[in-house]
Amino acid sequence: MNSASIDVLISEVGPRDGLQSIKSIMPTEEKNAWIDALYKAGVREIEVGSFVPAKLLPQMADTAEVVRHAKTLPGLTVMALVPNLRGAQAAIEAGVHKLTIPVSASAAHSLANVRKTREEMIEEVQKIAQYRKEFAPEVKVEAGIATAFGCTIQGLVPEDEVIWMAEQAINAGADESGLSDTTGYANPAQIKRLFRRLKAAIGSKAGAAHLHNTRGLGLANCLAAYEEGVTSFDSSMGGLGGCPYAPGASGNVVTEDLVFMFEAMGIKTGINLDLLFEARKPLQAGVPSEIIYGMVPEAGAPKGFMPATQWGG
Amino acid sequence: MNSASIDVLISEVGPRDGLQSIKSIMPTEEKNAWIDALYKAGVREIEVGSFVPAKLLPQMADTAEVVRHAKTLPGLTVMALVPNLRGAQAAIEAGVHKLTIPVSASAAHSLANVRKTREEMIEEVQKIAQYRKEFAPEVKVEAGIATAFGCTIQGLVPEDEVIWMAEQAINAGADESGLSDTTGYANPAQIKRLFRRLKAAIGSKAGAAHLHNTRGLGLANCLAAYEEGVTSFDSSMGGLGGCPYAPGASGNVVTEDLVFMFEAMGIKTGINLDLLFEARKPLQAGVPSEIIYGMVPEAGAPKGFMPATQWGG
Repeated sequence: MNSASIDVLISEVGPRDGLQSIKSIMPTEEKNAWIDALYKAGVREIEVGSFVPAKLLPQMADTAEVVRHAKTLPGLTVMALVPNLRGAQAAIEAGVHKLTIPVSASAAHSLANVRKTREEMIEEVQKIAQYRKEFAPEVKVEAGIATAFGCTIQGLVPEDEVIWMAEQAINAGADESGLSDTTGYANPAQIKRLFRRLKAAIGSKAGAAHLHNTRGLGLANCLAAYEEGVTSFDSSMGGLGGCPYAPGASGNVVTEDLVFMFEAMGIKTGINLDLLFEARKPLQAGVPSEIIYGMVPEAGAPKGFMPATQWGG
Repeated sequence: MNSASIDVLISEVGPRDGLQSIKSIMPTEEKNAWIDALYKAGVREIEVGSFVPAKLLPQMADTAEVVRHAKTLPGLTVMALVPNLRGAQAAIEAGVHKLTIPVSASAAHSLANVRKTREEMIEEVQKIAQYRKEFAPEVKVEAGIATAFGCTIQGLVPEDEVIWMAEQAINAGADESGLSDTTGYANPAQIKRLFRRLKAAIGSKAGAAHLHNTRGLGLANCLAAYEEGVTSFDSSMGGLGGCPYAPGASGNVVTEDLVFMFEAMGIKTGINLDLLFEARKPLQAGVPSEIIYGMVPEAGAPKGFMPATQWGG
């Protein structure tokens, strides 16, 4: 199977979004083994870590090493999250293919998360894009609009402001801008409305849907985004990083369940479900005390299940 | 709020589908208190039990008593499941407003579940409809096509056979026929295809979507059914009756999460979410050893959440 034949791109964010949200620190060797297993299953874009001060997120201290390993896998897009220019410089030095910058649409969340106003964060995007242009023009830059569907601090986030932030990020030099349901607040009607407006505002620079399953609507929201024309989805193996106080209340959409949904619908992900289930083993081995979620891995694929690549026509 | 103002009907099946799937037997008083609380929250159709031999399902032995209590609640449609004419006679004697008859689309499941071929089951529908016509013409009869999206015994269930079974049930005298994903096999594309075909085949007699969340696709499948024009949904409070071996792998779609999804989208259910959460208390009190699922009850509604009835316009 080659990547040209896929219908949707599943971008695995577990090694970053998942691992940074839990207490356990996964050893570098285990991270690499997990990434190898994801790659073997057909995953072709992985957010392998973030470039942030190790004293803030010790789980991410080895990201440069993990990037170097991931880059040995042919055809894999190696991504990392960077909150500022310093992080971007480190990421580019480590050799990432793509940077993702979190930009909050909520003014309150922006201050709480990165201690910057939204306007200051857009300036940061501009600095990063400028640096990239000068020193690493082949590296892609994505701005993910966080709290795009609501904020746990300020509640409602006006849709005009969400779209305005995405436009500003593109004007500042980002190659693409997607929408993140950081708080698990989104509903399918809102998803359709905002992705439609995003496309109207920034056209083909509209990026991925990064959706959470906090209220159980993760897959319904992905379906809504797909129906609105979104073809790139962030998700996390085992729903890693969920709130431990809520049984089953995983944070990110579970990669295994998302891949199952698309494949069952005849939508090609390029990912082999059985091999994807296998990739849960190195994950669990690396963080033995964490709960690894996933409904399809627990229940098994339906009897007679046929992945999209085996469909006729 | 009156029922004329709702956009979708949520039919609570927990007292039947949920309680018959667990080991605990809920005392009659507790069942009645739970039904009262559901009613208080705005639920206006409840499947309160089934009329089956008490030695097979002791959890359902008090269904006639529960029916009599539920009928004291004005405007509530009181439903019961009946597998055969004898059950229908008992249900009508108890005073139900509506009968639901499970009719398997899978030949293998039909034999395993009711020890009848599919053709014999259609004859049973005919006998029930005839009896109803003679002795209780005001009672509604629904045929729910079980295993409509796949079967754990035979795997694939041909779509032609699903639609054919629904047509036969209507020809036999059922007032409506819906589709049940008994096994949790359905995906959104399949949901849309089959409900479209169902409507083409039996028009306004197309009934409810009865969907399970075994593989996490429950809400996505409800969304797909809604987009295809379905306006009646079965669901179970707390996802009661789920597989205990799979954490979070509830059986039926969770009523609380489904109501949240629709209300957040601006689709009126007539149900108050806070009062619905309150109704979990008598349920939990009645079956203290069971796990009551639900993502929205665990996480809480989003800050600034506005139910559909509070939307302007």
